[in-house]
Amino acid sequence: MSLQILRKASSRTQNPNHLSSIVLSKLTRSFSQLSSQSKPSSSFGIAFDIDGVVLSSDVPIGGSPQAFRRLYDDSGRLRVPYVFLTNGGGFPESKRAHELGQLLGVKVSPSQVLQAHTPFKQLVSKFQNELIVAVGKGEPAAVMSDYGFRNVVSIDDYAACFENIDPLAPHKKWTTKHVGNPDSAIRDLVRRERGQAVFILSDPVDWSRDIQVLCDILRTGGLPGREIGHQPQLYFAHDDLAYQAAFPSERFGLGAFRIALESIFNRVHPHPLKYTTFGKPNSFVFKNAEFALKQLVSSVPDNVSVANHETAGSHQFKTLYMVGDNPLVDIKGARQAGHPWFSILTRTGVFKGKENHDKFPADLVVDTVEEAVDYVLKKESTS
Amino acid sequence: MSLQILRKASSRTQNPNHLSSIVLSKLTRSFSQLSSQSKPSSSFGIAFDIDGVVLSSDVPIGGSPQAFRRLYDDSGRLRVPYVFLTNGGGFPESKRAHELGQLLGVKVSPSQVLQAHTPFKQLVSKFQNELIVAVGKGEPAAVMSDYGFRNVVSIDDYAACFENIDPLAPHKKWTTKHVGNPDSAIRDLVRRERGQAVFILSDPVDWSRDIQVLCDILRTGGLPGREIGHQPQLYFAHDDLAYQAAFPSERFGLGAFRIALESIFNRVHPHPLKYTTFGKPNSFVFKNAEFALKQLVSSVPDNVSVANHETAGSHQFKTLYMVGDNPLVDIKGARQAGHPWFSILTRTGVFKGKENHDKFPADLVVDTVEEAVDYVLKKESTS
Repeated sequence: MSLQILRKASSRTQNPNHLSSIVLSKLTRSFSQLSSQSKPSSSFGIAFDIDGVVLSSDVPIGGSPQAFRRLYDDSGRLRVPYVFLTNGGGFPESKRAHELGQLLGVKVSPSQVLQAHTPFKQLVSKFQNELIVAVGKGEPAAVMSDYGFRNVVSIDDYAACFENIDPLAPHKKWTTKHVGNPDSAIRDLVRRERGQAVFILSDPVDWSRDIQVLCDILRTGGLPGREIGHQPQLYFAHDDLAYQAAFPSERFGLGAFRIALESIFNRVHPHPLKYTTFGKPNSFVFKNAEFALKQLVSSVPDNVSVANHETAGSHQFKTLYMVGDNPLVDIKGARQAGHPWFSILTRTGVFKGKENHDKFPADLVVDTVEEAVDYVLKKESTS
Repeated sequence: MSLQILRKASSRTQNPNHLSSIVLSKLTRSFSQLSSQSKPSSSFGIAFDIDGVVLSSDVPIGGSPQAFRRLYDDSGRLRVPYVFLTNGGGFPESKRAHELGQLLGVKVSPSQVLQAHTPFKQLVSKFQNELIVAVGKGEPAAVMSDYGFRNVVSIDDYAACFENIDPLAPHKKWTTKHVGNPDSAIRDLVRRERGQAVFILSDPVDWSRDIQVLCDILRTGGLPGREIGHQPQLYFAHDDLAYQAAFPSERFGLGAFRIALESIFNRVHPHPLKYTTFGKPNSFVFKNAEFALKQLVSSVPDNVSVANHETAGSHQFKTLYMVGDNPLVDIKGARQAGHPWFSILTRTGVFKGKENHDKFPADLVVDTVEEAVDYVLKKESTS
């Protein structure tokens, strides 16, 4: 039953519509340990964006520690099902859960961390034994290995396998450990095999090198320096053009990198760049979040109505709240996802308007995440 | 007389048509010392591209040291007027002349080095006392100071004046001396004044930061982090999409950076990016080269026909040879420039075809620069 519902749901999503949400169930198993004696509400749940809502440059904002403590009971057990729903990424969900827990003073399960690249694990069966390249700040190759991909190489290591591939390298003076020295197993793999897919998990750091090397891979069918070949698959974790960080005006994100890569590739290649973008505001992301929230509820043994994984898909929330700072990403996404999503826009990040956003108005606008949680708990009478 | 000719010539050029070549005369004065007793030919001259013709990654190729020695007499004095005509750059002409001389084993004058950014000096009167930003690998700010600009700041120093302007900085681990520490005079200048112009002299190294900071400058009228304002002037030394370096396939150049910057800027700004590109294949570059070659000839006191700077403009060459590796840049440019240019295409760089280039066929195709010089000297009967 749950599979049917999800398949119908995914057929309405923008892109990529072939991906369902079922593997998220694997993520949620550890939650039963976290909340085995608590009774989280089963009528509503909350999805929180992280950057610009809960944190800014890894510093809590908007009263987030106080707000999150209200989602747990006095003994630290979860009483409101919630997830983090972020387009950020670059680190394994377990690591991010631990960091969020430390910063907010609560216990966060990896199953509560839905990053833009979390759905990449659904592609393991397709590329498990193929050579794939992982791109972005953080530990993109570690993330992909964690998901089960066996022959994953970071773009740092990949580029270092080709002498002179980056003509600007002598001007860079990088001090990362890998430069010029990937181990021999990686060198053998890269020189022997065609790269079959590229996964961009988070913002690339070294744009000049990465655009050059990615065009090399994508133009040649995965063999830089050779003839033009069939374009390997290309996946972007999300397509955010800009985001609010510590600087007063927004900073460019992965969407800007995609524009740069695509514009240059299309000037040097006879066929336009083909790619798939994940992340908010795609509707399937909200379906995934709904499923993860159902699994959170169902993993509590004494919650009779949703007692096991098999029936979790049929459980229906009355309301799911999306708390975000970006109208074009969080609010647009929640609106497109429709029932049962209710969108709450904070003023701590991208959005700074006095009233509502013109083009993608939220159901509610508040100053901070603390106000958002206060509103939800009062409305749901569980405060 | 010379002024008139040059103004007429420049009015036929593509871009920027308001720039004349007259200031090049300043460059050529030192040549009289170099060749005061030689008698360079006055009926022909040669312009050599550097990368892919004379050097590859700063190593001589195509028999270039032997070829260049044939342009001097036995006592090391120049007997054939020639210039280097390159879209490369990033260093002062004097430094590049010294390096070329060392690599080729001949004496090269700064007046023989025409880089893509050499014509920027013609804009000194417009921006002499304004805050301008210099971008690119090498020493772009030193080059612009050399030209006479008084308030020039490198983008390294400029970016370091704004905390958090580059959100990827913590992932970069740069070790350049300037990071986070421009001197207080620069900080005061950058915070006090609007940036009035941006000059991109050579390939930017840190694309993510430079695209971000340039969009900040260009969107706000030169005050990053503030409201949208009138776009400052933007000048690119050239617009080469790709060039042949040590890697088997071509590497992206400044033209690729321009595409990336323009594509992103145009997505976030209500008006399209405005800019001016210099460099080959613009016809005014070939007019500049012709003028520089005339000055070389005229600077020789005992050459009666062109005895001084004032009459140099009226001197006419029978043939000027452009020796290049890039059909879209060197050959297209020489063809567009018309008489007296004769184009010679080498196979040591971008072009690797067996016959001629389809779209921009050269007047002659040879394997190496040594063959090109051999052809010219035989044809001109001066060998």
